[in-house]
Amino acid sequence: MLIVLSGPSGVGKGTVRQAMLKSGYRDFHYSVSMTTRKMRPGEVDGVDYYFRTKEQFEEEIANGGMLEYAQYVDNYYGTPLHYVNEQLDAGQDVLLEIEVKGAMQVRAKCPDAVFIFLTPPDLNELRHRLVGRGTDDAVTIQKRVNKAVDELKMMQNYDYAVVNDEVPLAVDRIEHIIQSEHLRVQRVAEKYANMIKKATSGD
Amino acid sequence: MLIVLSGPSGVGKGTVRQAMLKSGYRDFHYSVSMTTRKMRPGEVDGVDYYFRTKEQFEEEIANGGMLEYAQYVDNYYGTPLHYVNEQLDAGQDVLLEIEVKGAMQVRAKCPDAVFIFLTPPDLNELRHRLVGRGTDDAVTIQKRVNKAVDELKMMQNYDYAVVNDEVPLAVDRIEHIIQSEHLRVQRVAEKYANMIKKATSGD
Repeated sequence: MLIVLSGPSGVGKGTVRQAMLKSGYRDFHYSVSMTTRKMRPGEVDGVDYYFRTKEQFEEEIANGGMLEYAQYVDNYYGTPLHYVNEQLDAGQDVLLEIEVKGAMQVRAKCPDAVFIFLTPPDLNELRHRLVGRGTDDAVTIQKRVNKAVDELKMMQNYDYAVVNDEVPLAVDRIEHIIQSEHLRVQRVAEKYANMIKKATSGD
Repeated sequence: MLIVLSGPSGVGKGTVRQAMLKSGYRDFHYSVSMTTRKMRPGEVDGVDYYFRTKEQFEEEIANGGMLEYAQYVDNYYGTPLHYVNEQLDAGQDVLLEIEVKGAMQVRAKCPDAVFIFLTPPDLNELRHRLVGRGTDDAVTIQKRVNKAVDELKMMQNYDYAVVNDEVPLAVDRIEHIIQSEHLRVQRVAEKYANMIKKATSGD
């Protein structure tokens, strides 16, 4: 099963993803993204990202090797298709933690995936925090709130909305969604068909 | 949210429902069924069932007061619509534990409800148990297995299939399904729309 975790920038997708990997609750594979941005101190190729040149990345795109990709600040970021397919074929769950633009590309290609949208606990809190900080003027604050609103409206393209009020709670909710999605009739139909076949053949 | 728990006869729906009510995990209301069968010693009207006469039950049917109903062995069993609507309007989750025929009636009337099908752990085990018991001949055993197979095939009309291998595990799975269904975007859309309204009005 393919699980797509996305949400507005700054909502804490990376933190939640790391907490999920540490929780050990469920066996799934995290799909490492590919990027053209420079490796930072402490980062490891193949762990934090697959670090590639712009030419290599564009060659992957041209070869149809990217499940999704986008450009941010002159750098490419994306998900190589190869690893995802390999894990899915082996019956493993695969987790993508990606931006909303990329998530919509995955949605078009893999409608059976589970799309989870991480949301901030409260937009009004964001406004109050910005006002209280006193560093932004009213126009800037309104712009930032409007941006958060626009991003929040994108949840309509997702299956689930999970509020990131506290990371362990958000992780629990996501784990339960994954567990429940595995019990969806369309996903288990084959298993039960085999059980019926075995029982009626009198084996 | 309306939750419909159903499954083949003998799968343990009643036991799982009782364990759910005792678990106290989540606040939901169990909709007591109505029946025309006689009250048994220890049973309480309005707790185990609403006990009614055949005439009263048929009047309810005629008045459109039943969400679902069916006849078994000369007795009516069904779910009064009134209580379910009252609880749903109050924003409560309502649990129905009903037979597959009734569940299909609810599906037609309430497509937004969550339909959970409880399954036996293994059909082949059923066969082996019947053979090992040595009280049924081969034809009878085949008939019983075929009946279980037919009932199992009805799961395709449900959203989730939950195996009742151990009652506490089945209860956990159902609780997680309910929790996850509450996070479905179409169910929370209104809540987030209100949050956006508040944030953009600058309240």
